Amino acid sequence: MITNETIVALSTPPGVGAIGVIRLSGKDAIAITNSVFIGKDLLTQESHTIHFGLIKDGNAVIDEVLVSLFVAPKSYTKENVVEISCHGSNYIIQQIISLLIRKGASAAKPGEFTLRAFLNGGLDLSQAEAVADLISSDSAAAHQVAMNQLRGGFSTELNILREQLIHFASMIELELDFSEEDVEFANRDQLQELIAKITLVINKLIRSFELGNVIKQGINTVIAGRPNAGKSTLLNALLNEDRAIVSEIAGTTRDTIEELLNIGGINFRLIDTAGIREATDAIEAIGVEKTMQKISQTALLVYLFDVVNMSATEIHDDIARLHKPGIPFLAVANKMDLSYSDRLKELKFPSDISFISISAKQNQHIEELKQLLYDTAVGDKLSDNHTMVTNIRHVEALQKTQTALNSVANGLDNPVTSDFLAMDIKQALYYLGEITGQVTTDDLLENIFSKFCIGK
Amino acid sequence: MITNETIVALSTPPGVGAIGVIRLSGKDAIAITNSVFIGKDLLTQESHTIHFGLIKDGNAVIDEVLVSLFVAPKSYTKENVVEISCHGSNYIIQQIISLLIRKGASAAKPGEFTLRAFLNGGLDLSQAEAVADLISSDSAAAHQVAMNQLRGGFSTELNILREQLIHFASMIELELDFSEEDVEFANRDQLQELIAKITLVINKLIRSFELGNVIKQGINTVIAGRPNAGKSTLLNALLNEDRAIVSEIAGTTRDTIEELLNIGGINFRLIDTAGIREATDAIEAIGVEKTMQKISQTALLVYLFDVVNMSATEIHDDIARLHKPGIPFLAVANKMDLSYSDRLKELKFPSDISFISISAKQNQHIEELKQLLYDTAVGDKLSDNHTMVTNIRHVEALQKTQTALNSVANGLDNPVTSDFLAMDIKQALYYLGEITGQVTTDDLLENIFSKFCIGK
Repeated sequence: MITNETIVALSTPPGVGAIGVIRLSGKDAIAITNSVFIGKDLLTQESHTIHFGLIKDGNAVIDEVLVSLFVAPKSYTKENVVEISCHGSNYIIQQIISLLIRKGASAAKPGEFTLRAFLNGGLDLSQAEAVADLISSDSAAAHQVAMNQLRGGFSTELNILREQLIHFASMIELELDFSEEDVEFANRDQLQELIAKITLVINKLIRSFELGNVIKQGINTVIAGRPNAGKSTLLNALLNEDRAIVSEIAGTTRDTIEELLNIGGINFRLIDTAGIREATDAIEAIGVEKTMQKISQTALLVYLFDVVNMSATEIHDDIARLHKPGIPFLAVANKMDLSYSDRLKELKFPSDISFISISAKQNQHIEELKQLLYDTAVGDKLSDNHTMVTNIRHVEALQKTQTALNSVANGLDNPVTSDFLAMDIKQALYYLGEITGQVTTDDLLENIFSKFCIGK
Repeated sequence: MITNETIVALSTPPGVGAIGVIRLSGKDAIAITNSVFIGKDLLTQESHTIHFGLIKDGNAVIDEVLVSLFVAPKSYTKENVVEISCHGSNYIIQQIISLLIRKGASAAKPGEFTLRAFLNGGLDLSQAEAVADLISSDSAAAHQVAMNQLRGGFSTELNILREQLIHFASMIELELDFSEEDVEFANRDQLQELIAKITLVINKLIRSFELGNVIKQGINTVIAGRPNAGKSTLLNALLNEDRAIVSEIAGTTRDTIEELLNIGGINFRLIDTAGIREATDAIEAIGVEKTMQKISQTALLVYLFDVVNMSATEIHDDIARLHKPGIPFLAVANKMDLSYSDRLKELKFPSDISFISISAKQNQHIEELKQLLYDTAVGDKLSDNHTMVTNIRHVEALQKTQTALNSVANGLDNPVTSDFLAMDIKQALYYLGEITGQVTTDDLLENIFSKFCIGK
């Protein structure tokens, strides 16, 4: 998969800016740059130095640039790397890249720099995937989780356990060579212990995905309520204080509006559907169906009601209709600034839903509501070291590892021959290896790196 | 205007990319970066070196970065400059910039890095302006003109002449000190010679603006013609071969479509107005008025007619109506693939218009038409060294210099006293100085640099 080609791409976002950075990687990166550079002889310069000069195409000066040199293996890709910092004009960038291609470089494919970093041992596969997560991270929590993964994350722990498992695998292989002598080189008790230990770690990681995934994607939070419940006022009250980090996301369907709300570094996607608005007015099959569908996909449901003007029966009816098992439910009584204590006394909530009174208009208990949203979705599940799985590929590999390990454990409990044990251990090693990339296929790599941006 | 503050800004375009570059400039640029950097001690490193490390906010790792150091005065701004190359996530970039601001840096204003480069003598004012032109250049010619200006351009020549003029000014000042003795320190003949020389250079530069301006802005080219003349086919034929560098520009009015066509490195803005389309159908006052207005503002008019199906009278009428003095006019006969020689014999064109036959549909003579467009707009006015004035501010200063020099010349022809001569020379020096920035005001600088992007 690795080639001798020297690749080139723009590494900064396209568009007009003060500067643009063009990156080359490969054996000839420095030589190719040197062939169009007027300044010092780049071939004789040290790694990690910067040189001012001109990029010339024949007699025409394309730009005044700064060239940064990274001599193999002291670079991101472990190959020779050159970064050319030029004026941020699309015209200039195109001219320089096409000149470098004429001089022998090839246009880099998406993620090709990071792919080379992986293939040359600079990063393991889960770290390489973290680079893409890091670039797209848009909240403190998503950023911390990606950064943790980039800096080793669970790879280190998994690799140590994998090494130990490999040890047992080789012992058992050895038993196969002596199969006629009925010896046991692999201590069955120690193997059982190791499998229990790996299972513990893997289960913890699998469980962390539930939160890890929502941290990366944002937590879908449907807000339901009748037209005059004060939903818009609540949205404004919630968003107002974080105006700078709020953005409106174009909905996937025309009648869905999503607003991003950051609470404690976690993104909540507040979703307001037309269906929910109508469902309580004209209870039609289609409307309810649509509402229920949205609700069944949400991670969190906020039911807002007008505690003054709605009857207890209406509120109870709504809750009964909207409350689904497994989906955390927040009942939010609005208009607490008006007289509401009588109504409140009439209300009875199921034990598994949370309740809070607020006034969206008077901005009362809005911070408390945010805290409740955070506690309901995240609670204390966010550990300090942010080691969690956010990648569906990793979870699937962990689950397959677990299945194989279960077979090993069963084989130990109901003794099977060494060759069966060996096969199951090999299977577990295979799936574990997929996570950090000791085991890869071209398809897997293609699939991972094609989602990267060009230039990374 | 210059402060002791250390400024910081993102220098690459906003948006998600592989990397982003954050730039600091000022006395404390290295110290501020060092205070959040985990790696080598940046304060003891050499200029033009690159260092890998972490940016940390307390215990939290914000990113793994590469830090490039430029120690004063070996930098763009002549101050200490640091460039931090981080992962291209908006979240990370915002976090790093706000951290650096908390550590004592200030957010840079638009163009503030280049302003500092100018104030610290790294660039003269016309070079600083060329930086902005370079970034926004989108054709080979615009790029070459901006690059030439950045690399000295006419500044050097003007500065030598200005020095000589300053010499005469001081001689004449000296005469004023000895005014009662009626001496002449300044050789009047040599002064006259110098003024003639400066006038020659200035006039050449002023004349170059006509082309320089259109090179920078693109050459407005109105295409007029009746509905069935084949205008759309012609547009397609013209644009087809350069599809890669063609883009549609949203017109300033709803009914104007502009297409960018690059011929020989010059951008032509092909403009097709609804007014022109209608004007020949329903010759209404408003329609004609609108058409004529577009035509009066164009740099070049292409009149396309159907040489087969239109009568000679119709064609003559159109030309009489559309042809305006001072605006180059190209009469283009379309459908030359059909029989047209008879019609052609009947046609009589005014001597100051160019004529060509084409077939838009059969792609005949399209390259010849492009060459004709280029020759008509540019001809041989584009000198090899691309020294030309593209900036309206420079032209105005040159014109004012010329007026002052004329006064000096008049004063020499009809002898006036030294103090009048001195005053006029000072005036000429003032305007000349404005171009390269020996003479500036805060307003002038504010006006120039506020148009820059932030981070440059």
